[in-house]
Amino acid sequence: MVEKIVEEMKPFFDPKAVAIIGATDKRGKVGNVIFENFKMNKERGIFKGNIYPVNPKLDEIEGYKVYKTVKELPDDTDLAVISIPAKFVPATMRDIAEKGIKAAIIITGGFGELGEDGKRLEREIYEVAKTHGIRVIGPNCVGVYVPDKGVDTVFLPENKMDRPKSGPIAFVSQSGAFAAAMLDWATMAEVGIGKMVSYGNKIDVDDADLMDYFIHDDEINVVTFYIEGVKDGRKFIESAKRITKVKPVIALKSGRTEYGAKAASSHTGSLAGADTIYDAVFKQTGIIRAEDFEHMFDLAKAFAVLVHKLPKGDRVGIITDGGGAGVMASDAVAKFGLKMADLSEETVKFLRENFPPHAVPKNPTDVVGDTDAERYRIALEAFTKDPNVDAIVIIVLFQVPLLEEEKVIDIVAEYQKKSDKPIVAIAMGGKKTDYYARMLEERGVPVYPTPERGVRAMAGLVKYAEYLKRLEE
Amino acid sequence: MVEKIVEEMKPFFDPKAVAIIGATDKRGKVGNVIFENFKMNKERGIFKGNIYPVNPKLDEIEGYKVYKTVKELPDDTDLAVISIPAKFVPATMRDIAEKGIKAAIIITGGFGELGEDGKRLEREIYEVAKTHGIRVIGPNCVGVYVPDKGVDTVFLPENKMDRPKSGPIAFVSQSGAFAAAMLDWATMAEVGIGKMVSYGNKIDVDDADLMDYFIHDDEINVVTFYIEGVKDGRKFIESAKRITKVKPVIALKSGRTEYGAKAASSHTGSLAGADTIYDAVFKQTGIIRAEDFEHMFDLAKAFAVLVHKLPKGDRVGIITDGGGAGVMASDAVAKFGLKMADLSEETVKFLRENFPPHAVPKNPTDVVGDTDAERYRIALEAFTKDPNVDAIVIIVLFQVPLLEEEKVIDIVAEYQKKSDKPIVAIAMGGKKTDYYARMLEERGVPVYPTPERGVRAMAGLVKYAEYLKRLEE
Repeated sequence: MVEKIVEEMKPFFDPKAVAIIGATDKRGKVGNVIFENFKMNKERGIFKGNIYPVNPKLDEIEGYKVYKTVKELPDDTDLAVISIPAKFVPATMRDIAEKGIKAAIIITGGFGELGEDGKRLEREIYEVAKTHGIRVIGPNCVGVYVPDKGVDTVFLPENKMDRPKSGPIAFVSQSGAFAAAMLDWATMAEVGIGKMVSYGNKIDVDDADLMDYFIHDDEINVVTFYIEGVKDGRKFIESAKRITKVKPVIALKSGRTEYGAKAASSHTGSLAGADTIYDAVFKQTGIIRAEDFEHMFDLAKAFAVLVHKLPKGDRVGIITDGGGAGVMASDAVAKFGLKMADLSEETVKFLRENFPPHAVPKNPTDVVGDTDAERYRIALEAFTKDPNVDAIVIIVLFQVPLLEEEKVIDIVAEYQKKSDKPIVAIAMGGKKTDYYARMLEERGVPVYPTPERGVRAMAGLVKYAEYLKRLEE
Repeated sequence: MVEKIVEEMKPFFDPKAVAIIGATDKRGKVGNVIFENFKMNKERGIFKGNIYPVNPKLDEIEGYKVYKTVKELPDDTDLAVISIPAKFVPATMRDIAEKGIKAAIIITGGFGELGEDGKRLEREIYEVAKTHGIRVIGPNCVGVYVPDKGVDTVFLPENKMDRPKSGPIAFVSQSGAFAAAMLDWATMAEVGIGKMVSYGNKIDVDDADLMDYFIHDDEINVVTFYIEGVKDGRKFIESAKRITKVKPVIALKSGRTEYGAKAASSHTGSLAGADTIYDAVFKQTGIIRAEDFEHMFDLAKAFAVLVHKLPKGDRVGIITDGGGAGVMASDAVAKFGLKMADLSEETVKFLRENFPPHAVPKNPTDVVGDTDAERYRIALEAFTKDPNVDAIVIIVLFQVPLLEEEKVIDIVAEYQKKSDKPIVAIAMGGKKTDYYARMLEERGVPVYPTPERGVRAMAGLVKYAEYLKRLEE
């Protein structure tokens, strides 16, 4: 069954040939932006499939032959991207069925979210899909983005929204505008997204299907969901249990409060349900719940690089060159349910012997404001060897005058590589800090802009590790 | 008494002549960076005072005459910045007293934070200061930054740390490294800081003195504090009560938990005290407590422009072009103790008449993804007139295809100006969003990167308005 889902989803993420139904030469229109995305990615050599625009009124768009009807499409077509008015979609679905195409992304809005008429259209579409074994993403969505394969149905042009690089994070969103904003944000934050799916009204492909699929996707280390409501609770729970055994899942579920639930029902028609039920389901299935989108991506960034190096326990060691930041990180350790590691006698002795007298060989270890990179090496050497330390939070205020920035980056990256203890870093500051933080992230160390957010990300790793441990027992 | 504090603090923020005791020509050394800061600001025409380096071993630094001793200093010297080893500071303080200088910033560390010997030196310095009426900032601090007057004792050179522009926010920090990181961050975030004071071990000038001073500082709209511990509780409470009647104060108090308190005692020797006591004091005095530094500056940004336009109640109206973001903002309204406004019949009627049928004339009002700027005007027109709406949260996802970015900025800024209801904006996205967000902020509308943070900032405005109302009653 799970292998079936891989076969079924393949055309969405790596089609042999895509039919763009409703393609047009009118700049800025949805059917034009999607066509341009594929065309540009083909010219860049990233999209390897064929592109077949479909429009009864056109013969050609920018050198591409336009097909008048779905029936005329070449036989290698395995994905249909539909952007035509809602009322024409059921008939088109029947043509797709006849043609033998097994995957459709329905971008068009104006369905169930607008009321009973739209819901009727959705049922009609679903009937066709069910009968002919067509998998459908949407309607009312921005569809799919796969940077490695050049698939991009996001109908917001590049002058409105940037596209992130590829990476081991999958991002699934019920909301299209939120998905677009997040892709745009991820580009700026240099967070790599391997696959994005925005499924809108999800009449067919849903969270559970995607979880089943991502179990088998070796390019994805962590799956993130923005959810307003789940329709089939049992199916969701079963898929969630299956995937979290293999890789972490993070969910940002909105509509938590009465106000939010009311807004969600106007938005995607989702019945948000009692939030306590979602909390229980997430806990039971090992899904990590995010408080907001910053938390979601903070966690995703940590898991993306540290999923195979989870902490063995909850005892955190903190190294800092700013005392205040160390205090804040210590508060966060308590707030997020972790423990401050009790440093071993050997560690304290080693630090005392190797540090100048005004540095603080405690936890937090304060290498203090006149530190060089070497003091960080001494602290890391001690912490990675200390049996009482499970996880390391390292705070680098790059502003301090004597710290050699690239050298400290080398040192932290070296210990991330050679130690089996996970390291997350915190760097507070401005443009220069941002530059060095990106450099450190490229070397496999996730970096956070505040002590709270860094420690909270580490707490997510600990929580997931504990879930896996409970499963084993 | 309060006028006295203004006189006393003046030399710190706008000295006629500054003596830099421990000035040196050795690049990168503390005494060199501080000298260079003043020199550069004088060359730029910002620092208008005289600069007198003091160093017994030098005759001249970069064209500036060096004074061998404090005694030789010209008589207009009204501020001494001290960066010499700790053990020499008491004698220098006696020279300063003899010279009649009434303000000293002691940058040097190695005092009370290192133990009993250091504490003894601190007491010795304090005795001299007390006897001769000298006000002291520090020791163990980065001192003062006043961009408008060119005062900058921050000993981290510009190639390590950027300096923010001026603005109506005062930032006071017990931690020097944190202060430096925050100034650096504020530059990137384009948050204007009018005055920064980092007081370190605060043997003399403390939070209470600064609150008393800032009451009278017309250039400052809001005062933010990073505090690890308060020494004189009664004095703090009295000053806090005085200033919060006039302008808002935001405190980030770390050492909240047992772990944090322990770390704070190693850092600044602060006795953190029971956190519940701080909570009670902040509540009683109308100080708004920040959860972390992002929260602190989110609040500061809102107060900086909206302090004279506080919400009349807690009923929030939300306008959005992304349904998901609207749901998240609604959740945040509940989470942060606000109410969703019940839109008046007139508002709903007006929106229904002027919106296309697929837009949602509720609260949140969803202008939906195909919006233009005009729909925002319609919603703002209705919300600002609606007697049931006290405060407006406007979400602009700039990614949506038909939205004219600069036009929507004009419209939001226009209503911020002409309505008496405060407006905060939320814009999620990447570089383009950042660009437009800065543009909107320059027009007097604070912008936040997530729904939670935007609503949380609005909640701070409501909380302070409620405090002022209670005072009146």
